[in-house]
Amino acid sequence: MSDDRNASDVRPQRFDESAWQALFRSELGHPAASKLSRHGLEFDAVYSAKDLEPLAGVDTTPGLHPFTRGPYASMYTGRAWTTRQYAGFSTAEETNAFFKASLARGQRGLSVAFDLPTHRGYDSDHARAMGDVGKAGVAIDSVLDMARLFEGIDLSTTSVSMTMNGAVLPIMAAYLVVAEEQGCERSRLSGTIQNDILKEFMVRNTYIYPPRPSLRIGLDVVEYAARHLPRFNPISVSGYHLQEAGATLVHELAYTIGNGLEYVKGAVARGLDVDEFAPRLSFFFGIGTELFSEVAKLRAARRLWAELMQERFQPRSPASCRLRMHCQTSGVSLTAQQPLNNIVRTTIEALAALLGGTQSLHTNSFDEALALPSDQAARVALNTQLILQHETDLTNVVDPLGGSYLIESLTQQFVVRARELLSEIDALGGMVNAIERGVPELAIARAATERQVRVDRGIDTVVGVNAFTSEGEAPPEVRVIDHEQVWRVQAERLKVLRASRSSARVSEALEHLTQTARNGDANLLEAAVECMRARATVGEVSLALESVWGRYSAERGSIVGVFNRGYGDTQRWLQLRERVNGLRQRLGRNPRILIAKVGQDGHDRGAKVVAAGFADAGFDVDLAPLFQSPGEVARAAIDHDVHVVGISSLAGAHRTLIPELVAALANEGAQHIHVVCGGIVPGVDHDKLLEQGVRRIFTPGTPVVECIEQVIELLQ
Amino acid sequence: MSDDRNASDVRPQRFDESAWQALFRSELGHPAASKLSRHGLEFDAVYSAKDLEPLAGVDTTPGLHPFTRGPYASMYTGRAWTTRQYAGFSTAEETNAFFKASLARGQRGLSVAFDLPTHRGYDSDHARAMGDVGKAGVAIDSVLDMARLFEGIDLSTTSVSMTMNGAVLPIMAAYLVVAEEQGCERSRLSGTIQNDILKEFMVRNTYIYPPRPSLRIGLDVVEYAARHLPRFNPISVSGYHLQEAGATLVHELAYTIGNGLEYVKGAVARGLDVDEFAPRLSFFFGIGTELFSEVAKLRAARRLWAELMQERFQPRSPASCRLRMHCQTSGVSLTAQQPLNNIVRTTIEALAALLGGTQSLHTNSFDEALALPSDQAARVALNTQLILQHETDLTNVVDPLGGSYLIESLTQQFVVRARELLSEIDALGGMVNAIERGVPELAIARAATERQVRVDRGIDTVVGVNAFTSEGEAPPEVRVIDHEQVWRVQAERLKVLRASRSSARVSEALEHLTQTARNGDANLLEAAVECMRARATVGEVSLALESVWGRYSAERGSIVGVFNRGYGDTQRWLQLRERVNGLRQRLGRNPRILIAKVGQDGHDRGAKVVAAGFADAGFDVDLAPLFQSPGEVARAAIDHDVHVVGISSLAGAHRTLIPELVAALANEGAQHIHVVCGGIVPGVDHDKLLEQGVRRIFTPGTPVVECIEQVIELLQ
Repeated sequence: MSDDRNASDVRPQRFDESAWQALFRSELGHPAASKLSRHGLEFDAVYSAKDLEPLAGVDTTPGLHPFTRGPYASMYTGRAWTTRQYAGFSTAEETNAFFKASLARGQRGLSVAFDLPTHRGYDSDHARAMGDVGKAGVAIDSVLDMARLFEGIDLSTTSVSMTMNGAVLPIMAAYLVVAEEQGCERSRLSGTIQNDILKEFMVRNTYIYPPRPSLRIGLDVVEYAARHLPRFNPISVSGYHLQEAGATLVHELAYTIGNGLEYVKGAVARGLDVDEFAPRLSFFFGIGTELFSEVAKLRAARRLWAELMQERFQPRSPASCRLRMHCQTSGVSLTAQQPLNNIVRTTIEALAALLGGTQSLHTNSFDEALALPSDQAARVALNTQLILQHETDLTNVVDPLGGSYLIESLTQQFVVRARELLSEIDALGGMVNAIERGVPELAIARAATERQVRVDRGIDTVVGVNAFTSEGEAPPEVRVIDHEQVWRVQAERLKVLRASRSSARVSEALEHLTQTARNGDANLLEAAVECMRARATVGEVSLALESVWGRYSAERGSIVGVFNRGYGDTQRWLQLRERVNGLRQRLGRNPRILIAKVGQDGHDRGAKVVAAGFADAGFDVDLAPLFQSPGEVARAAIDHDVHVVGISSLAGAHRTLIPELVAALANEGAQHIHVVCGGIVPGVDHDKLLEQGVRRIFTPGTPVVECIEQVIELLQ
Repeated sequence: MSDDRNASDVRPQRFDESAWQALFRSELGHPAASKLSRHGLEFDAVYSAKDLEPLAGVDTTPGLHPFTRGPYASMYTGRAWTTRQYAGFSTAEETNAFFKASLARGQRGLSVAFDLPTHRGYDSDHARAMGDVGKAGVAIDSVLDMARLFEGIDLSTTSVSMTMNGAVLPIMAAYLVVAEEQGCERSRLSGTIQNDILKEFMVRNTYIYPPRPSLRIGLDVVEYAARHLPRFNPISVSGYHLQEAGATLVHELAYTIGNGLEYVKGAVARGLDVDEFAPRLSFFFGIGTELFSEVAKLRAARRLWAELMQERFQPRSPASCRLRMHCQTSGVSLTAQQPLNNIVRTTIEALAALLGGTQSLHTNSFDEALALPSDQAARVALNTQLILQHETDLTNVVDPLGGSYLIESLTQQFVVRARELLSEIDALGGMVNAIERGVPELAIARAATERQVRVDRGIDTVVGVNAFTSEGEAPPEVRVIDHEQVWRVQAERLKVLRASRSSARVSEALEHLTQTARNGDANLLEAAVECMRARATVGEVSLALESVWGRYSAERGSIVGVFNRGYGDTQRWLQLRERVNGLRQRLGRNPRILIAKVGQDGHDRGAKVVAAGFADAGFDVDLAPLFQSPGEVARAAIDHDVHVVGISSLAGAHRTLIPELVAALANEGAQHIHVVCGGIVPGVDHDKLLEQGVRRIFTPGTPVVECIEQVIELLQ
């Protein structure tokens, strides 16, 4: 820049666009880019008061419609947010001990993670459950397990959040029965049940029944809560899982608000007064490392919800338009490499959630890309919140970023873009229709695939993964759970339970539940509570409803062209396609791969992305249905005559289910089909898996191209 | 809050103060506090556009006067900040290896930490140096050591920052000679030398000579740089150490700007054109966990500097008013307890520095409250910056918080308060006068004492220290340095050097330096360069100047009444004073304690705070002069007839100097005088120290009251 102007000429004045552009050019030798596109948003290089002029209502009042600056007037100045760490592992007793320790350490609310069989409505001793019992959460088979989970914890004073969607009826019913047997009145129960089934059909897939009966279940819970649980949030409309599955922040926002509106529409349609239940709906967002974008997303969510509720349902109570939320820091942003880096990421994310005005927060543990949290990692995660609360000036002021030219502009951008996406959903006839046609699912999978290609190609940097990597770091000590032991304990308890209860009473209650499902007139949660009082199991309740509606198996769309576009004419991609051509010549047909998951884990972002890569590379790709047993996957591999099976394992299934798959192939004389696997497979398990016949193990951070190259090598 | 108003009445509108107050009251049962005071600042509970109306020039242009929104127009959108990790330990070779590794890991600039004897101008083989050689930084005795430090690093392309104040002449000269011998032209050298001697008289105390000759040395460096080093920053005016010593952020800001103005005044007074040197002055701030306050402090620093430079010196170049800065995350915010928590703190602090618009940044390692950084901790510290740079949206936009009602209001508040403090300094006749009267030193020590009382009493929460503590955590592996080995290496090298050089040439150069100091006409750095070319040592150059000016010993003021006020009539404090009364009866006089430091470490925040506590408790307290040998401290203890000596040890002196003190007391027959110590003493060293006769060891986080109670017990 020119240093010889007279400084006295340049006294403070309003932002001067042309002077700024001239300076920018003199500093960098090029003009400021007009717009930087990043993750579905556009950024100017600088914002000023001018950017706010076209925006109406920026300087609104915290606690008043449209709540952009916060759902409450006092926010953290009166009382800090609720620290609420999601936890659950192995047995109810162990989780209970962890809960008590967390409360003693300064945590304010509980949040229960259930294991996958519980989510999917299987008792622990069900054949499909075995590989997943107690792995990614706590196994709850009955009221007795639920009582153990909350033993010594007063449910009338402790707020409890439960991440449950598919099996919401038996789980919510078990919670109600435990409270009842603790002597706690329903009206005093406070907490949240996730009960957001629509997003399960977009991502994660822990549904049980088809979309429409699933929606009825959800609304029965809403209706029950409106009548009996004045302090309980009967739905937590969840964007978190959309972000985890790879959605852009704009998609996360739009689809979450869309799902919320769908629930309201359904409840109003069955005759509920919107003001009876809408004030108790709550939201749940994921928070990644894009700090300003995340802050703006949360502010936009509040404004959008307020505006759309007002436009569509004209509630009388302002509270019906007030969006309250829980946030969780991003799991997908964590890396298995250099795990202490995750403390940095989680701190940034926690800060974003709080600057966005969340009501409660879960901060991830730094070792969660490797295993369930160790005690030390769980403590650091909680301390992250305590430090923000006690050692910073964050709680001094309501909406500290209010007025920031950038934040207010981004908030506006989110509102506009999310409204565009919501109009598209409306044009398809609403969210249930859109889901049945797979529209949100595909949009999210496409964004996930695009992100993967950017990381694989090094366009997006992930520290310690595709840049600034290190060798030979000792992995931290991780929590190891003896799953077989958990399985034995649960199976034994089920045996005792079944022997000790009144079978007649159980049958009668289940029969009544089935009738209620068939007739569609009474409340299913009422009926489920009766079942749990009678000591029916979670699996029995789920099975009874399955007998009416069936178990849902989704069509799964696939993503085409993202890798071809992303890699274009790069040397590596052309060579890889050339080698696939060579294979085709040699095999007499396209090489064929079956991408599958085994067990009850429905997180299929990785599987879809890998499938997209192999397809673009020239493979024939079969994407297996979810929730298959090892035997079913082996059968499909043989039927489709594939050369390779690629198994994605995230929830610890590699220890039991993958060896079973290898054995099943061998039993059928199909040893020639190679098995490779990817996902979260701790280093200590690698040798054993390779001995058991797995041909390659792809650890987190392995670029998809490298997986394809290695599979090609296998086939050569 | 009332939920029955018609929501359609409450469409977006401007911030409504009275509606907000009413809501606030209904949420919390009390009105919003009018002002929350915290760390010298006042916060409203909410800010709105109204708060900005009285402020002129909020929406200024980044890169233009007064630079509130940034010194450059492009900021991080064109090029990220410089990651610059401060490092140095043991020998030049080891530090050189660390530098090379850091550059390979993605660091962009180097920053040298020197050991205490180097700071204080002693060669490693000087009797006063022994206990401190190679401990808190690298030992540099001559040009040969400096050459080893930068071996294989091209000084014409690598920017080097050196934290050096007292011994700035020999160190800067050695750097220049090494560059010269590398074949690098002076005009290409880029980097910074701290050379901010004024703040050493307020805190930290690594001065050598009295204030006025010290100031002359500093200005000679400035003048030399103005003539020969166009890309080098000859002063880094440092608030960092003020914050570390306990200054409030307002004091840090005001005194730093005040020191900067004093340097400009001095340079102008000797006939330099302000535009010749002012553009190359740089600043250095500490960044604590108070996020918004820190952001506002940095913005206010730029505005204040621009305004005051304009008012006082009327430069022609805008660059003379442009404040550029380096920041370092807070050392004093780190805790020895639960060290991984420090990653969280450092992340928050790094973010604050970047949102404030710093040009370069040092992030502390999580184990620095325990020892020098381990390799893993150093990597995480650097990664903190890399993650912020690559995985967030921080670099998308210039001054992302610009316009925030809170940030702009706080920025204004800083400017107003700092101007008030600067007026007080002006009224005392300027900064040198104020320093000679101990005014800034006392204001800072008082703030430090007040903070300590708040932490000790649990009014301010420090996670893991006075709340949410844990037992039995394994400490992390820390870097251990064999100091005796370093000492032997350095002593041997000095012997070789002295034998191999031309003594005549050395004497001549030193004589010329002394003459220059006496006559006050020529440039001391020129003369020091000649000494270093002749292979004079750092100690010889310093000693030569000491022969002219003497070594400075400061009067040290003491803080009275802060503990008495802070604890007031609490049971614990009354009891403690009662027990001191009892002691007085028994001893026939007040119990008496000598608070001392040994060796060359001048960080005396802790010593002053502890002295203030004992004095308020009713002890007679002697605060020993700094930089004493163990023998001198023993002598003073006997002369003053004290009952206890309290030694503060931060830089590893406990291993050699404290045992020597105990021995010195015994030699003089004064075993009855108890020795206790506090500061950074790793757990592994405790048993040995206790065996050697130390009676109590107070680890970091021990409340001062507890120290007093334990000393009382000793005396009973």
